[in-house]
Amino acid sequence: MKTLIKNVTILTMNEQLDMYQQGEMLIEDDTIIEIGKTCSGTYDQCIDGHQGILLPGMINTHTHLGMIPFRGLGDDCPDRLRRFLFPLESKCMTPELVYHSSRYAMAEMLLSGITTFMDMYYFENEVAKAADEMKMRAFVGETIVDFPSCDSDQAYGGLDYCQWFIPKWKNHPLITPFVAPHATNTNDLKHLQLASQLAQKYDVPFSLHASELDYEMDYFQKEYQMTPTEFLNHYHLLNKNVVLAHCIHINDHDIDLIKENGASVAHCLVSNLKAGKGVMPLKQLLEKDVFVGLGTDGPSSGNTLELFSMMKMIACVHKTVNHDRNAFPCQDIVSLATLQGAKALHIDHLVGSLEIGKRADFIIVDTDSVSMYPLYDPYSALVYSANAGLVNTVFVNGECLVKDKTLQKVSLEELKQNLQQDSSTFSKQALEYVKGL
Amino acid sequence: MKTLIKNVTILTMNEQLDMYQQGEMLIEDDTIIEIGKTCSGTYDQCIDGHQGILLPGMINTHTHLGMIPFRGLGDDCPDRLRRFLFPLESKCMTPELVYHSSRYAMAEMLLSGITTFMDMYYFENEVAKAADEMKMRAFVGETIVDFPSCDSDQAYGGLDYCQWFIPKWKNHPLITPFVAPHATNTNDLKHLQLASQLAQKYDVPFSLHASELDYEMDYFQKEYQMTPTEFLNHYHLLNKNVVLAHCIHINDHDIDLIKENGASVAHCLVSNLKAGKGVMPLKQLLEKDVFVGLGTDGPSSGNTLELFSMMKMIACVHKTVNHDRNAFPCQDIVSLATLQGAKALHIDHLVGSLEIGKRADFIIVDTDSVSMYPLYDPYSALVYSANAGLVNTVFVNGECLVKDKTLQKVSLEELKQNLQQDSSTFSKQALEYVKGL
Repeated sequence: MKTLIKNVTILTMNEQLDMYQQGEMLIEDDTIIEIGKTCSGTYDQCIDGHQGILLPGMINTHTHLGMIPFRGLGDDCPDRLRRFLFPLESKCMTPELVYHSSRYAMAEMLLSGITTFMDMYYFENEVAKAADEMKMRAFVGETIVDFPSCDSDQAYGGLDYCQWFIPKWKNHPLITPFVAPHATNTNDLKHLQLASQLAQKYDVPFSLHASELDYEMDYFQKEYQMTPTEFLNHYHLLNKNVVLAHCIHINDHDIDLIKENGASVAHCLVSNLKAGKGVMPLKQLLEKDVFVGLGTDGPSSGNTLELFSMMKMIACVHKTVNHDRNAFPCQDIVSLATLQGAKALHIDHLVGSLEIGKRADFIIVDTDSVSMYPLYDPYSALVYSANAGLVNTVFVNGECLVKDKTLQKVSLEELKQNLQQDSSTFSKQALEYVKGL
Repeated sequence: MKTLIKNVTILTMNEQLDMYQQGEMLIEDDTIIEIGKTCSGTYDQCIDGHQGILLPGMINTHTHLGMIPFRGLGDDCPDRLRRFLFPLESKCMTPELVYHSSRYAMAEMLLSGITTFMDMYYFENEVAKAADEMKMRAFVGETIVDFPSCDSDQAYGGLDYCQWFIPKWKNHPLITPFVAPHATNTNDLKHLQLASQLAQKYDVPFSLHASELDYEMDYFQKEYQMTPTEFLNHYHLLNKNVVLAHCIHINDHDIDLIKENGASVAHCLVSNLKAGKGVMPLKQLLEKDVFVGLGTDGPSSGNTLELFSMMKMIACVHKTVNHDRNAFPCQDIVSLATLQGAKALHIDHLVGSLEIGKRADFIIVDTDSVSMYPLYDPYSALVYSANAGLVNTVFVNGECLVKDKTLQKVSLEELKQNLQQDSSTFSKQALEYVKGL
């Protein structure tokens, strides 16, 4: 099956940033086979992009999809992770809720142009199931934490979960299971080592929250006279399979260690800012050629599972942090959401740019919205003028999952109803709990 | 003519932040006559809000509507004000272009829920004409600047323009003309004083860019050993009619002076960040009870003429600047976009909150979009989850200007075509000019 996409401005997001005004792209099944001003091959069907912007599907390198029922709950509550997120999760999360929440969250990501995500939460078998059904490209990591949680009455129960969960999904064409210790400060050294060995045994990613919290930094300074990054390096827990989420409080030495070990970083700026935590040194990381992707974080942290408001926030905030309007030009920001994200997850041979031989993961963004005129520079329009509501068409691995801003394989209304039914008790309890804080 | 609005969550944004789940509001002609859980009065027509969020129309306290043709042009160019904005404006701006650009920009603001704006640019008679036709609540200020510009072959020609322009519009029910010296550093003392006298003579606002630029701060320090705010205070140019735009580089003494003189501030965070300039000390201003409104700045600076991405950016950035998740709770952010903006422009007796006797300037935001579920807290949903595309209905002064996300009195396509025709030569020249920098 061959599909031609025509009448689009193509941002290939390849290394040369090749761009085609009024370009065409031809895909065969799951693969891009031609791209440029025009395509010469025959095709079975044709999609008119109506002068939209065609770019690679966006890559969300850090999220917690099971947390949709938490969105908008106690946004401004200080220390909420320990004060209500952990307790509520332990008490109320069920496999069914994670499943329905994840399906809904995937719908939200697809509708906003995200085609690949890296999720870490509980009951990740449910997330994998949901991703398989929703046909997304997914990294799904089971959380390991030093207290009993919703999926285990034992501390570190996630390790056992990984033992059966990882082999089960390891050979799926679109889904990569991984090991996800919650954070440097919520796992002891022994269990971080066990988790790392497990990731190496199965050759899967290893991702955790790191250098995110003031009290985490204080703890490592006091206990080890090291930063969390130095600690991870010291105990051989940093390597090319590692994705560190947040990295707000890293210094130049940490950056060198991350680079030397080939680890990647998920930058969750909106979530970090909203929590008042601080700003990751993005410029310094990029100057050292560390692989950095963007992460929405969970819907209770960043609230929306999309990367448009993230791109605008990144451009604005990092220009100001560096006091330099010229820093972080728009094309670099779009690259973070696409090719750089693919590099961070080591899937840039498959996705992240539109190039012959790569998988057909792409989106078309409408340009007829009021804020998109005039359109001198499509990168600028995407970063500064667009929003998640402008994504018209989304393909993952050659399959059309969104067309005319509508999910093609499932009904959003049905996903919402299922989630609503499953979370009504949770939501009532949660609201009462938060009010009492 | 009486209209009932029902089936909405009402955020009155009054001082007590009264909120009505499943509330109703009754308006008669241009005035709110009932508001609460239910309304008892009869009505001629009824609007079903479909469980949307009803709130006051948003107030944009600083913009340059004539600049739509500049949007997305040289976003990352350093010192672009002097390097290309001023030269291009002087050379290429015409009354017709300002008129068509302003009409288009007003459409964009209406579609995103802004009902009142304060604009400063050239040929403001055209902006006033456009506002009158588009039926918006408007403050329109003619720019005065120390070099010949598009609307005058004389430096300070704007002063003469004001002399005929202000009396012409002064008694319009929705439009307030005002005096707009460009900035503290682009007007000499003598002309700032003349401009101030003019504003006092007609009892109209006086607004200018202030404490925005590094080189402006350096200049005042060197020339006067004062900050721009101290300079304005020293020469009796600060008073309750004054709206200072930007105020990025103000100190505690400046804030005291602004407060003592009863001046207001327009906070243009997105524009300031994108330019790498810095962050206005919002917390300190609010602690001193200075009236602060939000400003999109022009479409070449903030890119979108809407306050949704602004609200999210304000919450996120100011929480982080103050390292406090608890600071700037969502209701305070929505208040900045509504009641506080009205106070900054001294029109809070008319608009800014939904209260009996006030004008019917209101909007309904849809809540059926994927990112708006669950909806525990409508303030949080507006600040963190909504975007400009979710505004369904907009009334200004009792007239329905947007319904079902569609302009009711004009065609967006026609506005765009008119602007396109009028700006094609400009756009070609501008693009070439910027490429050469």
